[in-house]
Amino acid sequence: MHCNDRKGLISTITNFLFENDGNIVELDEHVEKKEGIFFMRVEWELDNFKIAKDKIAEVFEERIGSQYEMKWELHFTDKVPRMALFVSKSSHCLYDILSRHYSGEWNIEIPAIISNHRMHEELAKRYDIPFYYFEINKDNKAEIEAQQMKLLADLQIDFLILARYMQILSDNFINSYPNKIINIHHSFLPAFAGAKPYHRAYERGVKIIGATSHYVTADLDAGPILEQDVVKISHKDSVEDLVRKGKDLEKIVLSRAIYTHLQRKALVHRNRTVIFD
Amino acid sequence: MHCNDRKGLISTITNFLFENDGNIVELDEHVEKKEGIFFMRVEWELDNFKIAKDKIAEVFEERIGSQYEMKWELHFTDKVPRMALFVSKSSHCLYDILSRHYSGEWNIEIPAIISNHRMHEELAKRYDIPFYYFEINKDNKAEIEAQQMKLLADLQIDFLILARYMQILSDNFINSYPNKIINIHHSFLPAFAGAKPYHRAYERGVKIIGATSHYVTADLDAGPILEQDVVKISHKDSVEDLVRKGKDLEKIVLSRAIYTHLQRKALVHRNRTVIFD
Amino acid sequence: MHCNDRKGLISTITNFLFENDGNIVELDEHVEKKEGIFFMRVEWELDNFKIAKDKIAEVFEERIGSQYEMKWELHFTDKVPRMALFVSKSSHCLYDILSRHYSGEWNIEIPAIISNHRMHEELAKRYDIPFYYFEINKDNKAEIEAQQMKLLADLQIDFLILARYMQILSDNFINSYPNKIINIHHSFLPAFAGAKPYHRAYERGVKIIGATSHYVTADLDAGPILEQDVVKISHKDSVEDLVRKGKDLEKIVLSRAIYTHLQRKALVHRNRTVIFD
Amino acid sequence: MHCNDRKGLISTITNFLFENDGNIVELDEHVEKKEGIFFMRVEWELDNFKIAKDKIAEVFEERIGSQYEMKWELHFTDKVPRMALFVSKSSHCLYDILSRHYSGEWNIEIPAIISNHRMHEELAKRYDIPFYYFEINKDNKAEIEAQQMKLLADLQIDFLILARYMQILSDNFINSYPNKIINIHHSFLPAFAGAKPYHRAYERGVKIIGATSHYVTADLDAGPILEQDVVKISHKDSVEDLVRKGKDLEKIVLSRAIYTHLQRKALVHRNRTVIFD
Repeated sequence: MHCNDRKGLISTITNFLFENDGNIVELDEHVEKKEGIFFMRVEWELDNFKIAKDKIAEVFEERIGSQYEMKWELHFTDKVPRMALFVSKSSHCLYDILSRHYSGEWNIEIPAIISNHRMHEELAKRYDIPFYYFEINKDNKAEIEAQQMKLLADLQIDFLILARYMQILSDNFINSYPNKIINIHHSFLPAFAGAKPYHRAYERGVKIIGATSHYVTADLDAGPILEQDVVKISHKDSVEDLVRKGKDLEKIVLSRAIYTHLQRKALVHRNRTVIFD
Repeated sequence: MHCNDRKGLISTITNFLFENDGNIVELDEHVEKKEGIFFMRVEWELDNFKIAKDKIAEVFEERIGSQYEMKWELHFTDKVPRMALFVSKSSHCLYDILSRHYSGEWNIEIPAIISNHRMHEELAKRYDIPFYYFEINKDNKAEIEAQQMKLLADLQIDFLILARYMQILSDNFINSYPNKIINIHHSFLPAFAGAKPYHRAYERGVKIIGATSHYVTADLDAGPILEQDVVKISHKDSVEDLVRKGKDLEKIVLSRAIYTHLQRKALVHRNRTVIFD
Repeated sequence: MHCNDRKGLISTITNFLFENDGNIVELDEHVEKKEGIFFMRVEWELDNFKIAKDKIAEVFEERIGSQYEMKWELHFTDKVPRMALFVSKSSHCLYDILSRHYSGEWNIEIPAIISNHRMHEELAKRYDIPFYYFEINKDNKAEIEAQQMKLLADLQIDFLILARYMQILSDNFINSYPNKIINIHHSFLPAFAGAKPYHRAYERGVKIIGATSHYVTADLDAGPILEQDVVKISHKDSVEDLVRKGKDLEKIVLSRAIYTHLQRKALVHRNRTVIFD
Repeated sequence: MHCNDRKGLISTITNFLFENDGNIVELDEHVEKKEGIFFMRVEWELDNFKIAKDKIAEVFEERIGSQYEMKWELHFTDKVPRMALFVSKSSHCLYDILSRHYSGEWNIEIPAIISNHRMHEELAKRYDIPFYYFEINKDNKAEIEAQQMKLLADLQIDFLILARYMQILSDNFINSYPNKIINIHHSFLPAFAGAKPYHRAYERGVKIIGATSHYVTADLDAGPILEQDVVKISHKDSVEDLVRKGKDLEKIVLSRAIYTHLQRKALVHRNRTVIFD
């Protein structure tokens, strides 16, 4: 939840839970002092909670949300999120995500791998995941997106991962999944936004390369940042070395961002994230 | 404050402040699930607070502390802490601390630099800080410590920094300043506790060296850790290179630990710290 | 190659290659000053090289090696190394290695996954790699090792990866593969050598955890270190969080070590490595 | 030295030294494969060297340099470099440099601290370094620069440090000291070049901030990079926190760059550096 900061907010919210016999498992709050915004994430147990599960949203909005003009979301941990994976040719993030999925590290379903290339169809088959190929060209982009959006709706997809997907999505597509599309960009943004970041990093002679995972917005590579990390490089590294070293960064950074999203620990406000880790 | 975890603790404490018109500036809480310990740090404004400054401790203990068998401390931000600096021959931490002090980065007083060598007397003079030399040998250790403790008491010292002080303090001395003596050790503890960590790191062929700042306890280099950081090294680095690279780590790690202590953001429980950064 | 340092070594070696029309692709040298040991790695093209491929070793030893009492090795880049993977229950390193193998990141063959558990047999099948299960108990260890060593010999295995293999190999086994068995240990060695490093890291309250990849020697967790890395943690992290965060470290650190080994860029001398990256 | 790569270069150069009884202390070479440029740094002892100290440059150019159209420099370790420090209001880099100077970490002379503010005059006095104040305004910039350049020439200054100096130097000034002016910029370049990088980092919501030290060229914040480092931040950090955390980065990054420069281990080619660490 987030709203304008006021005296007594924490007290009010924790009282609400306490009075209804909700045992708080985790509580994090943050006040953005510059703008005076209050952020809070609270996780509590439903055993013995006095309000019925399907009434919580209504009661909370009535008693607290509406009064403080809050924006808030309610999620239940027994819901298994459904994730769609968009990929092109690079496979390191795809492999990393599938590995975590199959080893049971994440509690998710992956009903679709979607690609503009056929090359990872066999890999999808190896892991028994339906693979959807869309041939995309200059002229059919709008039509293909419509098909993809229908597929996502049919499959009841909750969120999307662009695991080095090299197509730019339309604003319409993006706005249908606000803070629900996670991208990995192979630079420490805002440096080297756009194409060929490793080539440009090499040309500039930087001593550090990075990777950034962010929610996708209509501005290319400019959405709210979830996770960033870097690795040191030297003059010895060719562009190919940067690509190789960068791959490890990208997959780890993307997977950490997905984990944060799955835990519902990322709150977004004005293109910035509050991450309660 | 910390105590055994119970339902309603946050609600109780925030209500207490809210009812007395205390505006919360910062609140952090943590529940150590394994042992079921509740930790909280709350900072609020005294303007309009209904309880008089000199009554807060008493009222809080009566109303909340005693009831929950809490351990808690109350600090006021207008109190300027008085720090004593213990040094031997190495000067990099000493310089770093003095630089922060004189540039106004920290709000502290340094009424004493205490050393078993005379070599930094001139530096102390450059910064107008009283320098106390104690000649320490095998036979006079107990006597010298008694003199030092009297000096610290006379100067109303609140906490002590061992800025690469190469003498081992007695248990009696240490126990007089519980969680008030901060040391810097030149390794990532628990590796290379004790003497000559850089030599041993070189011999072992590690690829990373570190520094650790911790509260001093009767067990050598085994107190609660406040801060650690590392730097990568390679086979090219001689022991002298490790010493050189390590100096930068040590001074930054120690100064971060001091900053955390000054902010009262380090809570100690069973040889571990909770750091509310 | 390595030998005692002497004036003119680089000149002698580079002359040898130059006179035989060998074009140097990469040259790295290092002098360990404390002991006066000269290390060098040189990579050159065989096109037009005046000495026949199968005579190089003989000629080099005669002309240079024997004269300087060098220890040296000769490797050809067209040889595809054969790697055996030893695993137990943890799968994150296994997945990471298989992903790199199948995506073509490494030029290797994996003729065997060897395990004391059956649980990853299906995964091996997914990737069409022969899986060898050995039931190990207190009494049959020597016998099983004999069978494993025969298998490795039959499969012409060049080097072994212990990808979180939880069995201790005998000295006899280890000595059969000097600097050819790579292990990953889930701590920044020498801290927390042996069992349950994450539990001990949690107990000690460290602010950093690490992973170390090293060549296996008869001393447990004490062989020459190839690669180390760390990640920051906080009081919020439970043992389970350390395990989760550590997994990402472990797989990346192990894979970097394997890459270094594959490039023949790790030289070993007296339990320390020289890594020419 | 650097030149176009050719077969036999290392052999030729090391032979030259060997034949003249020069004992090589350190040798580093790098071939930039994309452009085919050969870089080398070699350090040797002059004891018993057959060529007189003041003839080395001439003989080397005649025998090797001219033949390969090399760019090269010759430096002697017994020359103590003379450094000028330019500062404005921020003092953390200034303190760090003075501390290293006075503790004997660097073998340099500092004949001048130059500033457009008077506020660090007292600090300069504390360390007995001549302080030169220049009142700079819109109209007198060219005149002041002429005075500064005369001062630098009179004091026989070898290289300049811009230790958070907030004035932009003219192209004429910069071109008089090619690869001899070292700046520290408070971001990981190329992100946030120009003014107020911490404010912009905060606005963008990055999870990492950095600092970059580079040789100054006519393009603002775009010269060859010597050193970069980063530190993780979170949503909890205000702009003031970024400034505070960034200060530690800046001073360490700048001091590492100065050390590299002092060791003559930075070679520049086409706006990129080769750093032989």
